[in-house]
Amino acid sequence: MQTIDRWFDDYELGEKRSTVGRTITETDIVVHAGQTGDFFPHHMDAAWAATQPFGQRIAHGTLILSIAVGMTASDINPQAMSYGYDRIRFIKPVFIGDTITVTAEITEKTDHAKRPEQYGYVHELVTVTNQHEETVLVLTHLYLTNKRDTTPVH
Amino acid sequence: MQTIDRWFDDYELGEKRSTVGRTITETDIVVHAGQTGDFFPHHMDAAWAATQPFGQRIAHGTLILSIAVGMTASDINPQAMSYGYDRIRFIKPVFIGDTITVTAEITEKTDHAKRPEQYGYVHELVTVTNQHEETVLVLTHLYLTNKRDTTPVH
Amino acid sequence: MQTIDRWFDDYELGEKRSTVGRTITETDIVVHAGQTGDFFPHHMDAAWAATQPFGQRIAHGTLILSIAVGMTASDINPQAMSYGYDRIRFIKPVFIGDTITVTAEITEKTDHAKRPEQYGYVHELVTVTNQHEETVLVLTHLYLTNKRDTTPVH
Amino acid sequence: MQTIDRWFDDYELGEKRSTVGRTITETDIVVHAGQTGDFFPHHMDAAWAATQPFGQRIAHGTLILSIAVGMTASDINPQAMSYGYDRIRFIKPVFIGDTITVTAEITEKTDHAKRPEQYGYVHELVTVTNQHEETVLVLTHLYLTNKRDTTPVH
Amino acid sequence: MQTIDRWFDDYELGEKRSTVGRTITETDIVVHAGQTGDFFPHHMDAAWAATQPFGQRIAHGTLILSIAVGMTASDINPQAMSYGYDRIRFIKPVFIGDTITVTAEITEKTDHAKRPEQYGYVHELVTVTNQHEETVLVLTHLYLTNKRDTTPVH
Amino acid sequence: MQTIDRWFDDYELGEKRSTVGRTITETDIVVHAGQTGDFFPHHMDAAWAATQPFGQRIAHGTLILSIAVGMTASDINPQAMSYGYDRIRFIKPVFIGDTITVTAEITEKTDHAKRPEQYGYVHELVTVTNQHEETVLVLTHLYLTNKRDTTPVH
Repeated sequence: MQTIDRWFDDYELGEKRSTVGRTITETDIVVHAGQTGDFFPHHMDAAWAATQPFGQRIAHGTLILSIAVGMTASDINPQAMSYGYDRIRFIKPVFIGDTITVTAEITEKTDHAKRPEQYGYVHELVTVTNQHEETVLVLTHLYLTNKRDTTPVH
Repeated sequence: MQTIDRWFDDYELGEKRSTVGRTITETDIVVHAGQTGDFFPHHMDAAWAATQPFGQRIAHGTLILSIAVGMTASDINPQAMSYGYDRIRFIKPVFIGDTITVTAEITEKTDHAKRPEQYGYVHELVTVTNQHEETVLVLTHLYLTNKRDTTPVH
Repeated sequence: MQTIDRWFDDYELGEKRSTVGRTITETDIVVHAGQTGDFFPHHMDAAWAATQPFGQRIAHGTLILSIAVGMTASDINPQAMSYGYDRIRFIKPVFIGDTITVTAEITEKTDHAKRPEQYGYVHELVTVTNQHEETVLVLTHLYLTNKRDTTPVH
Repeated sequence: MQTIDRWFDDYELGEKRSTVGRTITETDIVVHAGQTGDFFPHHMDAAWAATQPFGQRIAHGTLILSIAVGMTASDINPQAMSYGYDRIRFIKPVFIGDTITVTAEITEKTDHAKRPEQYGYVHELVTVTNQHEETVLVLTHLYLTNKRDTTPVH
Repeated sequence: MQTIDRWFDDYELGEKRSTVGRTITETDIVVHAGQTGDFFPHHMDAAWAATQPFGQRIAHGTLILSIAVGMTASDINPQAMSYGYDRIRFIKPVFIGDTITVTAEITEKTDHAKRPEQYGYVHELVTVTNQHEETVLVLTHLYLTNKRDTTPVH
Repeated sequence: MQTIDRWFDDYELGEKRSTVGRTITETDIVVHAGQTGDFFPHHMDAAWAATQPFGQRIAHGTLILSIAVGMTASDINPQAMSYGYDRIRFIKPVFIGDTITVTAEITEKTDHAKRPEQYGYVHELVTVTNQHEETVLVLTHLYLTNKRDTTPVH
């Protein structure tokens, strides 16, 4: 974890990075249920899940989302802060034992509506893939970012 | 946790529900860092955070999002599944010791593009409020929902 | 989780409710050992357990008890508080991967010894069943409950 | 943790042991909520709890029970197994930061109803005390125990 | 857990104690990654690990070290405090499902350099063995220990 | 987390890196007790600790060691593996709320005894400092490292 200043101007459309893999374990699901209070049988009841179309327990959407975003948190950039996410889609279920990797690509840069000279939004498309190279989740992460030679965001 | 069938047709625009409160603890943040691998000093370094504008550690965005969505997971509806989220915005930071409550309101119903006779999307606006009645996070939760007398979604 | 006032007078003998299932995982056992400090080899040593009559690790009694009672915590009743449990019996071991469900039945109502006009005890028989429909644990949960039109318990 | 054979005949009425102390932390409560699924505001909502008679969050009954029983799990006795508990009473609430200690005293020995020559029950009164020397919880732990020179319990 | 005073003079070279076993679970590894922030694929990525010489995920060195030292923490000795460890060696990997046991032997006693009349170091060789009786980790634990009839260490 | 090949030849004596900070929380201690089974009152009993010279609970040595080593796990180097640690010393206690940072410096390079043409040991001195710039722990981390143009270590 390093601290590296990157300004709005420094981000290039098409920049892409990817992570090493991480296996989603039964532990992750049990801990996430415990953190969120979501004990739905889809995640917690192996006997019932075996009778359903998916045939087994599936990870919470918020678990995969949280881990995926966490896997993209590498360098600290004091010039940017997480503003929100757009268009999160759960495309395929993630099962216990699946291994996910994440790619993140800068797909868009937009100006701040009220202070375009000072701030902009960097849009990063986050794509989560399983070990079968199937996309399981996508989202767009928006970073509110300082333009160079301006007052910092925070 | 009860299982109750609700079809697309059963949801009414303006329907609203709200939760009891939950205090966000240091434990929640430490556990979430451990689950996601995001140990950024914004969340984990009290000494550094004290020198920043916010003055203290702040909760991960994905933590508040995950807990808030979990708090809305009350009854099981076999006719609906979580499809994704739109427009997640982190409006204010959540600090250790803050207590959040969540309201969820049906704000829109849209048809499935390819099979409008069979499926629709129920849009639920999730609003997270702290103990000062400030909104800290909003998102729209999309549920892919069966229309009555059709083949189930899953 | 809803808040619903129910007074002593509202409970009917024979009222029965049951839960969805929950699979007891290795994670649950490891977390419970860590919470309680009970690292007995019956729960934590797979190699030794394989040489014993049960042939595998078994869940802590307090784990199953805690989860089962937790599974019955659905609605909040401001007119009642948990007073204690009677006659907890560990009838069969619970193994990693077993799925339990819980039923709770009102079996008795008794008056408070000193203030019978004000309080009573609602006795709820909690029965925990595994996926083979074998009873693994029973206990009676006692709730100290306000009688209608009296000063609240707390 | 040692393994020491103790038969029914070896236990003496009045035998007493006590533990070192353990502070009940906010972490314990958050972890216990996560393990059991009981997120009642009594345990999890500091803002609401401040408006209640107790004035602060209180530990789950099953948390104190589980930790207290765990604290008595010292030596392994292959001649005894946990059979159940009688008369669990939650006498006073336990708050975050309270420190509990546990005493356990052999108070009764009874024969097994069907095989009195082979088995008996050792009754151990478990008393949990806080740092103000107030009793917060009592229960009687029943151990099914082999009589000497008989076939083992398990 | 008992409190027993043992002075430097009371330890004998060659004294040896050993523990019951403990199975290292996937949960232990996931929790340890979460505690330490070490999410290296050697521990967390089952798909990648399957392509490596070891063929599967391996436990963190610090996990086995921490558990092993913890397993030797039995009686409390107010006359000694943990001073450090020497020569920790990770001899073989520990895999998910392996069961370890620990032996600890007093191998050396040395005087404190500046106050030899008051303090000494008790050296305990900690050896961790798996279920195949292979040594997986060794270390020497140094305890700074009061000599009898002297001012206490702390 | 990036994967970067660095051979024995690439390490320079005096190379130094340092980490961002991390606050040691009560949660970390409770989780570590749960992971290791070490519930000594020094870590877990606030009431007793208040009567001791340190005046408060202190972190487990293995907790600080594990977190510190984890904080140095940044890039993945396929040419090196963790071989062990030398001379771990617990210099000052770490209290709840202390914030630690870690520096790691290459202090020595030695050849492998039997295959000096193929392997060497890189010695990294790990120093853990608290928010008062006091050193709390030191250790030397040994990495068995491939020399360039040789068969890999693993």
